[in-house]
Amino acid sequence: MGMTMTQKILAKHAHRDSVSAGDLLVSQVDLVLANDITGPPAINEFEKIGKPVFDKNKIALVPDHFSPCKDIKSATMCKRMRDFARKHEIKNYFEVGQMGIEHALLPDKGLVAPGEIIIGADSHTCTYGALNALSTGMGQTDIGCAMASGTSWFKVPQAIKVNMTGKLPKYVKGKDIILTIIGMIGVDGARYQSLEFTGEGVSELSMADRLTICNMAIEAGGKNGIFPVDEKTIEFLKERGVTREWEAVTADEDAEYARVLDIKLDELVPVVAYPHLPENTHPAKEGHAIKIDQVVIGSCTNGRLEDLEQAAEILKGHKVCDHVRMIIIPATQQIYQEAMHRGYIDTFIDAGAAVSTPTCGPCLGGYMGILAAGERAVSTTNRNFRGRMGHVDSEVYLASPYTAAASAITGYITSPEEVVK
Amino acid sequence: MGMTMTQKILAKHAHRDSVSAGDLLVSQVDLVLANDITGPPAINEFEKIGKPVFDKNKIALVPDHFSPCKDIKSATMCKRMRDFARKHEIKNYFEVGQMGIEHALLPDKGLVAPGEIIIGADSHTCTYGALNALSTGMGQTDIGCAMASGTSWFKVPQAIKVNMTGKLPKYVKGKDIILTIIGMIGVDGARYQSLEFTGEGVSELSMADRLTICNMAIEAGGKNGIFPVDEKTIEFLKERGVTREWEAVTADEDAEYARVLDIKLDELVPVVAYPHLPENTHPAKEGHAIKIDQVVIGSCTNGRLEDLEQAAEILKGHKVCDHVRMIIIPATQQIYQEAMHRGYIDTFIDAGAAVSTPTCGPCLGGYMGILAAGERAVSTTNRNFRGRMGHVDSEVYLASPYTAAASAITGYITSPEEVVK
Repeated sequence: MGMTMTQKILAKHAHRDSVSAGDLLVSQVDLVLANDITGPPAINEFEKIGKPVFDKNKIALVPDHFSPCKDIKSATMCKRMRDFARKHEIKNYFEVGQMGIEHALLPDKGLVAPGEIIIGADSHTCTYGALNALSTGMGQTDIGCAMASGTSWFKVPQAIKVNMTGKLPKYVKGKDIILTIIGMIGVDGARYQSLEFTGEGVSELSMADRLTICNMAIEAGGKNGIFPVDEKTIEFLKERGVTREWEAVTADEDAEYARVLDIKLDELVPVVAYPHLPENTHPAKEGHAIKIDQVVIGSCTNGRLEDLEQAAEILKGHKVCDHVRMIIIPATQQIYQEAMHRGYIDTFIDAGAAVSTPTCGPCLGGYMGILAAGERAVSTTNRNFRGRMGHVDSEVYLASPYTAAASAITGYITSPEEVVK
Repeated sequence: MGMTMTQKILAKHAHRDSVSAGDLLVSQVDLVLANDITGPPAINEFEKIGKPVFDKNKIALVPDHFSPCKDIKSATMCKRMRDFARKHEIKNYFEVGQMGIEHALLPDKGLVAPGEIIIGADSHTCTYGALNALSTGMGQTDIGCAMASGTSWFKVPQAIKVNMTGKLPKYVKGKDIILTIIGMIGVDGARYQSLEFTGEGVSELSMADRLTICNMAIEAGGKNGIFPVDEKTIEFLKERGVTREWEAVTADEDAEYARVLDIKLDELVPVVAYPHLPENTHPAKEGHAIKIDQVVIGSCTNGRLEDLEQAAEILKGHKVCDHVRMIIIPATQQIYQEAMHRGYIDTFIDAGAAVSTPTCGPCLGGYMGILAAGERAVSTTNRNFRGRMGHVDSEVYLASPYTAAASAITGYITSPEEVVK
């Protein structure tokens, strides 16, 4: 029987000719990731093993969640990870000032290539599937073990085939696609399954769209999300200086899928996921009654240059509504600098937005824009669970950068085409 | 008997012909300030009085300390102040995105003029003396009362006359002057006294230097610091759109001083205040043995455009040392934007520094760069008390932007001229 993209990557890394859904196997991994929250406990587990790191070039440590540090506890965590990185000469340790949000940083640093396996102690590690890699989040204990062994265990997942057709309307982006999908199948609709995105519609999607879509595979319960390689992928890899050999995987024609979802891109509209689940999607243009207090544009989901470009396109010549705080967080130092060169940061400040140094910050209720009781935020982040961005009685509405920027201008949930002159 | 500058301002605002040191009086005030830490408790006191605000145009509320909010508590505090500002239509409430560090923001917004009295629930309110105003920090209860009455009580202070002569050497700035003075007289050397800065050397000092110097008057225990008006002051006020009438004050020839300090500017060198008191000053060039972990450039003391310019001058073409995190925080949105236009932010990112949105943040151990146990920071902030920027076993070394930038490059305390090619 044929294999899915994900299954092919697993078979190769486990040195097997074929695998089937449900198989348990131990596989080599190409990169092991941890951050300032998960790194220290992973390091604790690693040290219990008493072995050296399996490969100092294949571990990535990124202090992005509470860094630049928000308090003594986070400073202590960061110091633990920093000391470890120095001791073991970890090549891909990214200090404050070199730093960025891990899932934006790693692809941009050329640390991800097609066919590779990346595991990370962060649920949104699934982002890198956009580059035809198998990437998935794991617990810190598994990551600690993998730092010593260079391997991890997997149960081979089934897959959902997401077949995309048609053209993407203006103002509909990757975020709208994945929120629409999660709205269709629910937050457990792909539990322990791969979301494999295929069809002629894929070529419509920018790499930023694909990264956003795979990033939120976990919000449907997916083990991973994955795209095939096309010219856009190859261009992206070239621009990031990926010169090592890699092998793209495609699904076999006779691969078995648990389910096929047909997504007609033409029919999609800008959507917003209302509290308190990402599956609670509604067309953005139906949100006019919902008054908001804050807008956040950033995160591993939507903090890339294209996301800032879209926000700037909407905000140019507009002002953020009086009753709204707008916080924009470029995902990496490089994105920040390029956004500055292109004039986006100027546009944001002219509009009355605060621009933060790269950090996960508010997405997970970390810092840099936490909500008080009764406050509502429109956010380009990935989770709107109760209390996610602050007080248990605050609310998060998930949206694309286009929709978030439009909402910042009006102060109410607003579809992007409504503010365009 | 003659009066000092401070005494003249008090006499006028108390509608008296003259006052003497030690007099207790009630005086009108021109501006009442609070921030996100002190505002909410001040508002609580204000509401007990049950009167309207004395003048909605003469209250300034700035959420700068823990904002964009670092946690639920700070979000709740900010919401309290924001709701109050809306209810009472406070003109000078500065939201996230319009915001900046209060003591940089108020002069730049034209809210301070010579001869005025500004009181604020923040100890560094004394900054505005650079503009020949009487400004001083008060407790939140006094500020709450003043928001209702437009008055406050004062004990008329004695003064120390600081007589400046000579020319300022390259790389010696306002921060070095005030740290040197505090080193001479100690952190209680001016307790409840005015520091009145005079002499032909004053004309040497930029307005940024003067703001830094007055900002730290409190670090010598001073009630306030104050400069006379000269052409630079008038230019500063014009550029900030101050069109209302104001009257400069000068000290009477026969004013009485508790003490006269002679400061020969030519003899000054870049200095660093070692832990754990601002009086613990040493020449920067003697600090080579002190390895540092972090550098912060920002705060109400040294987050102005001139400060960023000096940092950029040193950092241009250099890299921040591998073992150092560098965090640069423009004091206001406007300063941030202008620094961007002038290429300073580019220089900072090229050097490997993180650039934060305006906030007091790390200065008071708030967020955005908190220290772990055993860590050392060189910082352009104003206090190096034990645990000020984080863990009780961390250390803060106070310095100018020049010295801080030089130290970031070498990773050790370094005098600016040592890194200039």
